[in-house]
Amino acid sequence: MPQYNPPLRDMQFVLHEVLNVVDELKVMPQHADIDVDTFNAVLEEGGKFASEVIFPINLSGDAEGCTLDKTTHEVTPPKGFKEAYKTYVEGGWPSLSADPEYGGQGLPISLNQCFYEMLNSGNQAWTMYPGLSHGAYEALHAHGTPEQKKMFLPKLTSGEWTGTMCLTEPHCGTDLGLLRTKAEPQADGTYRITGAKIFISAGEHDMVSNILHLVLARLPDAPAGSKGISLFVVPKYKVNADGSLAERNPIFCAGLEHKMGIHANSTCQMVLEGAVGTMVGEPNKGLNAMFVMMNAARLGVGMQSLGLTEVAYQNAVAYAKDRLQMRALSGPKAPDKPADPIIVHPDVRKMLMTARAYAEGGRALAIHTALLIDKELHHPDADVRKECADEVALLTPIVKAFMTDNGWIATSHCMQVYGGHGFIHEWGMEQYVRDARINMIYEGTNTIQSLDLLGRKVLGDNGAKLKRFGKKIAEFVEEEGISEAMQEFVNPLAELGDKVTKLTTEIGMKAFQNPDEVGAAAVDYLRVCGHLVFAYFFARMAKVALEKQNTGDAFYKAKLTTARFYFAKLLPETAGLIRTCRAGLKPLMEMDEALF
Amino acid sequence: MPQYNPPLRDMQFVLHEVLNVVDELKVMPQHADIDVDTFNAVLEEGGKFASEVIFPINLSGDAEGCTLDKTTHEVTPPKGFKEAYKTYVEGGWPSLSADPEYGGQGLPISLNQCFYEMLNSGNQAWTMYPGLSHGAYEALHAHGTPEQKKMFLPKLTSGEWTGTMCLTEPHCGTDLGLLRTKAEPQADGTYRITGAKIFISAGEHDMVSNILHLVLARLPDAPAGSKGISLFVVPKYKVNADGSLAERNPIFCAGLEHKMGIHANSTCQMVLEGAVGTMVGEPNKGLNAMFVMMNAARLGVGMQSLGLTEVAYQNAVAYAKDRLQMRALSGPKAPDKPADPIIVHPDVRKMLMTARAYAEGGRALAIHTALLIDKELHHPDADVRKECADEVALLTPIVKAFMTDNGWIATSHCMQVYGGHGFIHEWGMEQYVRDARINMIYEGTNTIQSLDLLGRKVLGDNGAKLKRFGKKIAEFVEEEGISEAMQEFVNPLAELGDKVTKLTTEIGMKAFQNPDEVGAAAVDYLRVCGHLVFAYFFARMAKVALEKQNTGDAFYKAKLTTARFYFAKLLPETAGLIRTCRAGLKPLMEMDEALF
Repeated sequence: MPQYNPPLRDMQFVLHEVLNVVDELKVMPQHADIDVDTFNAVLEEGGKFASEVIFPINLSGDAEGCTLDKTTHEVTPPKGFKEAYKTYVEGGWPSLSADPEYGGQGLPISLNQCFYEMLNSGNQAWTMYPGLSHGAYEALHAHGTPEQKKMFLPKLTSGEWTGTMCLTEPHCGTDLGLLRTKAEPQADGTYRITGAKIFISAGEHDMVSNILHLVLARLPDAPAGSKGISLFVVPKYKVNADGSLAERNPIFCAGLEHKMGIHANSTCQMVLEGAVGTMVGEPNKGLNAMFVMMNAARLGVGMQSLGLTEVAYQNAVAYAKDRLQMRALSGPKAPDKPADPIIVHPDVRKMLMTARAYAEGGRALAIHTALLIDKELHHPDADVRKECADEVALLTPIVKAFMTDNGWIATSHCMQVYGGHGFIHEWGMEQYVRDARINMIYEGTNTIQSLDLLGRKVLGDNGAKLKRFGKKIAEFVEEEGISEAMQEFVNPLAELGDKVTKLTTEIGMKAFQNPDEVGAAAVDYLRVCGHLVFAYFFARMAKVALEKQNTGDAFYKAKLTTARFYFAKLLPETAGLIRTCRAGLKPLMEMDEALF
Repeated sequence: MPQYNPPLRDMQFVLHEVLNVVDELKVMPQHADIDVDTFNAVLEEGGKFASEVIFPINLSGDAEGCTLDKTTHEVTPPKGFKEAYKTYVEGGWPSLSADPEYGGQGLPISLNQCFYEMLNSGNQAWTMYPGLSHGAYEALHAHGTPEQKKMFLPKLTSGEWTGTMCLTEPHCGTDLGLLRTKAEPQADGTYRITGAKIFISAGEHDMVSNILHLVLARLPDAPAGSKGISLFVVPKYKVNADGSLAERNPIFCAGLEHKMGIHANSTCQMVLEGAVGTMVGEPNKGLNAMFVMMNAARLGVGMQSLGLTEVAYQNAVAYAKDRLQMRALSGPKAPDKPADPIIVHPDVRKMLMTARAYAEGGRALAIHTALLIDKELHHPDADVRKECADEVALLTPIVKAFMTDNGWIATSHCMQVYGGHGFIHEWGMEQYVRDARINMIYEGTNTIQSLDLLGRKVLGDNGAKLKRFGKKIAEFVEEEGISEAMQEFVNPLAELGDKVTKLTTEIGMKAFQNPDEVGAAAVDYLRVCGHLVFAYFFARMAKVALEKQNTGDAFYKAKLTTARFYFAKLLPETAGLIRTCRAGLKPLMEMDEALF
């Protein structure tokens, strides 16, 4: 059975020692009262919930999966899930960073992100039930009418109800412009919605009294393509004006998907048979409203892989210290034992350190991004808000794609540390790999993320957003460049920064000739940018660790060691990636389609 | 539902046009009669078996899994498996490359390897039932007494019985020196064996009347460690002198492992309660005898990932041509359709081409290695036999580790092409990923393979084997260097060859200071060598394709295009790997164990 200890100290290091979140937050009226102790106390309690309530039902939930009653269309999640959700609601967790106007606690997104890392370490499949509510909450909060907000937001905030995102149809996922679900306007201002949706996470379950489905559909007169899509909120049970539940709305789970992982989450095929809903936002502008949900969700997906990386790492370390197998090539390290613990073997360490570095780099990036969102939402200075929004836009595809690719690599390495036992369900490691795999696909595949980064966020404004981020790096390099101890970090950071600038210009030039050059370079380019961002945060973490390494607290020594490992063993991947980026489009398009 | 078309033309290209196997084989008395038509006819029939008999029960077998009757200890594989095995035996397939002295057809290993590629594309879990017999056959053939050979080999050859390899115990996998299973000598020359084994593939099933377990155990007076291990053959049912079956031997399946993949193969926990066996080979030299099985098995594992890569590729291509989603960035390619087929998108092509290149490179390497084994076994010139044996020793860890790492990358890419559908069982792609994962672990983890390559095969003889292979490459480069059309292939090949030479020397020097440097470099080093070997075979394939590209047969154009893709988009990975190799041991060992 796997173990999990919430990495409170690691989160606190990033929050309070590297990013100084409390100082940053205090300038905002919304967060004027926040302090370090509040942050830490909430994280400690949140860690207990993750490790004591949902972690123990992760492995059993995977083995058991969900059950659909084909007569009632009701779905039962695995044993313990409903009870855990009740505990979650009673603890007030759903409302953590929700708007006080609707009953929320109004705590920072940066705090909530840390909480979600732990939830995902504890149980990704369970976490998706409340997790999907956030998307529905965001969309309604940003685009709902006053009536919709009043009717729905308090219920989502309290966790009494959950939400879903009903986007995908069998013939369309990435290309939502193709969707066919129809919304017929009714005389009373509502709509009757008919169609079939697939891959609806948490689409049906018995943990709450009502489920709010945010559904994309077409009005009868809608233009073709993505400019003819509207967003609707469709409750499982209709809601009376006084907030009480009325009759069942005909939106049913018609089947559960059989998936590689996240077995314990009910991934539903949903059928709408004239289900009644109301419009969210403007007609034919549903995709805009949906993107509010998507952006939040993309950050959430990054946290899923961060959570899995951390818990896989912790278990692989414990196994590597415990498992005795072979002697070190340099001679016995535990001569009193029949063999050495496998953590003495350099490649076992390489696999562990890789997972560790991806967790630490990812955590710094994720909390930094969450803090930007806090500032985007609440900073008193409009210019700062705009600047932060731009940086969030730039970093979101990196959080989603780089962190989930890394999560796949890391969980697979951690599983490998276990040898044959890693392949066996009971040890828990293979589940982390299977669960991690979906994160590279949903909420926009990682290819889509890379096109978003390179095509829209970087080339779309002639590199302006990237340049601003590059300036941050350059300033840091200049400031720290005078410190001899920081040379080993700032030099490769500066070098990679220059290379990214050059590479971006090159791709931009080629894209003028042929826009497909963007598609050819994007995935490798995103990974190079991911390393640039990680290198920046590892250098910043190293700076703090260097200052405190003589405090006698070995924690800082470990941070330094991880940073050194990152620069020595992970960052060099960029050497190959830059070359394959440069190799461009031709090698990909030369093959006649018929010859594939 | 996935599809599979045996890649006969691709295999024939490597066999007959690149490697000229028939000419190579004809000099051996054993294979004097072999001709191209025989090769092709067998492959065609073998392809039918793979695609028509075992492929249709692959997906259902994964969903159904195996069942253990805890009372009788009998295991039932999924529906259709027993019938497929009957068809296999009736077709004479088990005897394909077996020794004619024991009823075999004596056909070349190189032919059998191609057959196994197709079997693994069809159904890896099913293929492991007859596949494990090969290891038992090899061990008995090489080390059995005349009586053992006479009693067991004809039954394995006909497929009437199958075999297993019982090595692993709960506390030892890689480090077999720790094993505890005991063998007590009996007055009649037999042994009574007692212990517990785990991870025994095809350990129990109802497809044959008897199962021969090759079991590692310790004699009472055996020295500690790996020099005190003996090998025994332990039949499920004891065998009378006339070959008829006697009573049940107490070697039982006590449990089935719950695994990430290969669900349809019965991976058994085996308990031996004084089971009667006879010794194979000499006392305390069981590991030597076992290595005969292991080496064959390692090549077999490479073929498993090759088979999965090929079938995943074929399906991803079909999906990418069929699935309509978004428009090409460079403008609509199928303006008459609601969207373009996703094969127009450069990154989709990159994923497909990566799988294709890994399949084509792997196939060339695997057939080349199999041909070396044919020569090692039957070439009239002893020097040639020795030389071939050395090259097999060098290439075996590359076949095993490089091809299975590539298989993981390739199947994951092919799954990604499907978007969300890739995560769904019914499409078949996620099974390929799960099945491919075990190949990186069993028969010696890929870390162990890399230590075998760098520590034993390369540094162990001061680079002599590697130098001989390097000489082959240098000769090819020199010969083809005069051809302008070949520059694009031989130049990067030559460059990488030089880099490998230099890197090897560097690591060798460092290893003198600290043997752990070998462990730090090995995994990256193996991957660099894998690319060197692939680059060599892609250059050889390109040479043939260049010569024939004007025949009007587009097949050769496709070969050239794949080779170009390989050099442009996959080989550059070595740039990063060489750097991480060079970064050496220090970044891995700096972290105190307690700080992990």
